[in-house]
Order: sequence, then C-alpha cells, then structure tokens
Amino acid sequence: MAPQMKKRPLIGLMLGDATGIGPEIVVKILSKELANGDDASPARLSVVGDARALELGMHDAGIRLPYRVYTQLDQVPWPVDHIPMIDLANLDPACLTRGEVCPESGRVCGETLKHMIDLARDRQLDGICFAPLNKAALHSGGWNFSDEHQMFAHLTSHVGFFGEMNVIPEFATFRVTSHVALRDALHMITREQIGHTLRLADTTLRDMGHKCPRIGVAALNPHCGENGLFGDEEITTIRPTVERLRAEGINATGPISSDTIFIKAKAGEFDGVVMMYHDQGQIATKLLGFNKGVTVTAGLKTVFTTPAHGTAFDIFGQGKADPSALHQAVRLSATLAEAISRR
Amino acid sequence: MAPQMKKRPLIGLMLGDATGIGPEIVVKILSKELANGDDASPARLSVVGDARALELGMHDAGIRLPYRVYTQLDQVPWPVDHIPMIDLANLDPACLTRGEVCPESGRVCGETLKHMIDLARDRQLDGICFAPLNKAALHSGGWNFSDEHQMFAHLTSHVGFFGEMNVIPEFATFRVTSHVALRDALHMITREQIGHTLRLADTTLRDMGHKCPRIGVAALNPHCGENGLFGDEEITTIRPTVERLRAEGINATGPISSDTIFIKAKAGEFDGVVMMYHDQGQIATKLLGFNKGVTVTAGLKTVFTTPAHGTAFDIFGQGKADPSALHQAVRLSATLAEAISRR
Repeated sequence: MAPQMKKRPLIGLMLGDATGIGPEIVVKILSKELANGDDASPARLSVVGDARALELGMHDAGIRLPYRVYTQLDQVPWPVDHIPMIDLANLDPACLTRGEVCPESGRVCGETLKHMIDLARDRQLDGICFAPLNKAALHSGGWNFSDEHQMFAHLTSHVGFFGEMNVIPEFATFRVTSHVALRDALHMITREQIGHTLRLADTTLRDMGHKCPRIGVAALNPHCGENGLFGDEEITTIRPTVERLRAEGINATGPISSDTIFIKAKAGEFDGVVMMYHDQGQIATKLLGFNKGVTVTAGLKTVFTTPAHGTAFDIFGQGKADPSALHQAVRLSATLAEAISRR
Repeated sequence: MAPQMKKRPLIGLMLGDATGIGPEIVVKILSKELANGDDASPARLSVVGDARALELGMHDAGIRLPYRVYTQLDQVPWPVDHIPMIDLANLDPACLTRGEVCPESGRVCGETLKHMIDLARDRQLDGICFAPLNKAALHSGGWNFSDEHQMFAHLTSHVGFFGEMNVIPEFATFRVTSHVALRDALHMITREQIGHTLRLADTTLRDMGHKCPRIGVAALNPHCGENGLFGDEEITTIRPTVERLRAEGINATGPISSDTIFIKAKAGEFDGVVMMYHDQGQIATKLLGFNKGVTVTAGLKTVFTTPAHGTAFDIFGQGKADPSALHQAVRLSATLAEAISRR
C-alpha cells in the first residue's frame, strides 16, 4: 500500500453468474486471503450478492468460509477474521439450472452490479471486482448493452471517454473502437478518438504504477499503409495524433504495423498498446494466454475489474476451477482504486 | 517422392537479394543436400543467378561448394555430385553496398526471377524457390508491384485467382484480401472472392498432402458479428459461402471469431485458415513464429516459395544466418511442384 492512503481500498466482490464457476473461485481467493490474514491483503474485501450463492461457492470449492452479513459496509470493524457480506437475497441457486445460460441469473447479475454501483456512489465501496458473467444471460435478463462497459458507464451516469482495457502479464491493451462492426469502426477512428484512447492509456498505466508509460500505437492498414500505398490513415490521422500527444508529454510511439507491434510488446518494448479495432488486439492477447488476464473498465470514477475468462460451464461444481485470474483482478482493482483515491 | 512421378521435380534456387543473407543460406542448404547425396533429396536443385553471388554465399557461409555452370538445365546429367548452375552474369557483388537497400540489386533480383519464370515456361524448371528479397530494393529497381505475388502473376501472364499462402508448422493461412487498405478490403470481401479463396485453400492443401483439408474460415467483425449486432457480413456473405462450398465437398467451417480461430488452428483443429484481411492472419502467424515459416504464391502454374523472414541486413556476412526456413521452402516447393505435375 502507498503510505498516503489512510485505509486500504474496500473492494466489493461479486460472485459472477452463479450458473458457472464464479462463486467457487470467489470462495477460493477469499479463503486464501483469510489464511494470509486480512492485514496482508492490499485491499479490504467484501462480498455483495446472495448468501445462498456464496454457500454454493463453498460447496463447489469444498471450503468452509466464515462470513458475516452486514447491512452497511461502514459497520465492518476492520481488520476482521471473517468475510463481510451484503446479502441481497435476490437469487436462490436451487432454482437455477447450472451450466447453461439462464435469463433469471443474468437479470440478478445486472441487479447486483447496479446495487454495487450504488454502494460505490455512496463511498461504501472503492472498487468493484466481479467473477465471470454470461453476456447472453445478461441480455436475456433485460440488460441490453453491447458490452458490460457500456452498462457500467450508463449505470454510473458517466460523461466522457472510457473504455475496455485488457491486461496480460506482458502488457495492457486499449481500444480506439471496440464492439462495433469493422465497417463502422473505420469511421470512428479519428484524431479525437485516438487522442482520448492514448490519454486514457497513459493515465491508467500510471495508475498501475508505470512512471512514464511506454505506449505503442497500432497502424490500421497492412504494413502500416506502406507509405500511403495501402491506405493513408497512418499519414493523415494516426501519426499526427501520436506526434501531438508526444508534444503533450505522453510517451507514445507509432503507428506500428499490427503484425509487429505485439511482438515488440511481448518482448517488453511497451507497457501498453493502443489498438484501432477489437480483433487487432484480441487475436494477439488471446494467443498469448489472455484467459489468464484481466479485463478492466477504464476511465470511470469507479474501477471495475474481472477475469478475462468466462463462466466455464463445462467444469462448474467440480472444485477444479482456477482462481488465479480472479486473484489478479482483485489485486488490480485495489491498485487502481488506490490510485484513483489519490487524485 | 510419389511413385507416379518419373523424375523428382527440378527446383530453381534463386540467391535472393545479395545485399543480405540470401546467398549464405542457399549455400548452407545446398551443402547439406550434397552431403546427404543428391538422390536423398525430394528435388533436383539448381541455382539460377550470378556465379559471383554464389561465391559470395560460399564466402559468407565459410563453405566450399562444388558447382558447375550449364547453359541449359536439360544438359545436367542427374544425379550429380555438384550443384548445377545457370550463370546469368548479371550482378557483380563487389559493386554492392551490403546490409542496405540497393536499387541495382533489386533490379537484378527482378530480372533473375523473370529469367527463372521463362525457364519454368520452357519446362526447364518445375518450381522456383527464392531466398529473401528486399521489397524497397525491388521497387526502386523498377519492379513496381504491390507484392511479389502480383509480380509473378504478371510475369506468368496468369489469368484467374491466385494468392499468398503462409505456412507454419501448425497450419497454413490464405487471404481473401491482402495488400490493400483495410477500407478497400471491406469492399472486396464478397461471396465470389471468399469462394475463390476457399477453393484455392482446398486445392493447395490437397497438394500439400492433406486428404480432406479441414479449413477454418475467419469472421470479419468482432465476436463473429454477435448475431448481426456488430455487422452482418457473417450472415449475408461468409456463412452462405461456407455452406455453399461445403455442399461442393469442401470441408470448411465458419465463420469463426478471428480471436478464436487461430487458437483452434494452433491446437490442431484446422489444416488451413481463410482470413478476410491481411493483419487478421499475420498478427497470429507472426506471434506463432512465422519467421520460421514459408510464404507461397498459390494458384499459379509454377509454384513459388520463399522463407517468411527477410534479408536480415543486421547479420549479413557473419556466417550465422539460419537456413532452416529456406530448407522448408525448398521442400514445400518440391511437394507442390510434384502435385501440380500430377494434374
């Protein structure tokens, strides 16, 4: 913990879609944190959700966890020898068919996240970390957003730029465009949007502890446009923006061919990569093992993190789900929440 | 060798751009082939170029190679205990500055390839394998094509579909669009072009020895378009084409999200991947070590292969260039030339 923060950040843990492995991996990391002693953790951790889903996680994990239900998180007498919980009593796991998409579970996931956002607004939570959701369940449960980041921005009444960040051990990626048709993305790749993304990358990487983040900026066209032969966005849009932001003090480099930039980033040349469209970065990070990585909603007042992997319907209830990505997500939410509180 | 071919294919080896490592790696693989005995090779190998550049390669490699100059390749009394060569006497390496782009060297590279294409047309060569070229040198030397594949198609007066194939040990990739702006590529992704690419992939993978090639077809939009939410090309264009070609007997599967398809291909699920645009496949194959792979011009009457790596200006003349990708390129040209001859 940085010495200037009076208290360790309070991170709300959400159990994820209870049809999958979420409750199990939450229990596994909480059990580890308790064993290490609450003081050893970079964050104070609290579960928000249904106590029966937490019990389900204990059953799946084969671990008994001491927990206590509170009505307000400011009543928790930190440090504690148990897991504090806000019991929303909104989901009876006995009513779910597990291992498949369940609209009711999706509806409750959205409701729980909304409740956690309200807690963050009331300063009862400093950050939100959630176990894997199921997008189809969220949609069919009435939460119709193109992705969870749009949902969080809506629920936090956010004004301004924000975006999805993907973090693997080697580097982090940021997106100028994301969940839109590639045809539409091309129209959205403007100097302004690239500038917003670069500033978001710089701020967030600083929040992560990089002093002067080295940011690579991907080209749009093959071979970086081959000097204008295969497209001119590198010349008219990307390079001028990189130069302008370098003049502002952002350590950006590019544009760099997208089939080269991730090799450089993997080799340690960049802390972050700004990609022009979704698949550019996702092809690379998924091949590099992004399933062990962390997804962050960056740029909102409240930090949201989640493991990059999904609900793993094929192995629910077997006790063999790997909690390490969720563990990384918890640590990252603590780091980012602490940095945001210093601003 | 397949028993039905009377003679092993005769592959012409081109020394590449002599400013780089090309001559060195050609000498290294020829030396190995000679040591194994000419009969052990799947191809009969002959060098076409300037004898002084071959001497340069021997100097770089620190290997003395027995070679003999012929005026016609049909005069070579196979099997032989030396390397047969056509000496074009068109490049004095003493006049080159090595380790940098040289227009004269680029001009001669184009001229040599054109000569080899004429030999193939006269049935004196069954396939062409070339050490790395330098694209900027080719351009400044007067060979103005967007890539070497366009150049080969032009020089062979090719009519019909053809394309670049990239081969790594795990799988091969084929492109619906290649060296064009991404904006233009979107207009070129039609049912017709996807069909052409799928047929080319099927034929070429069969030529490589796959009996019923398993071909994955990439989506264009993020998350495979998320059922039309993020673009509809998957629904209107790609899926109908895949279904039509499956009905024709081609074992194609798709569309599959481009951040998933290469993970599947890497795991052995596909022999080939059809990608919609250049960077989609190149991001993946380069991360997987494509520098050790082979690039093929597929669909022409004459097969062209080359190592995927470049001229390696940083290590020319040091004897430490790795010839293994060129070796793979020679083997693949023999396999493909033999298959083409059987048609």
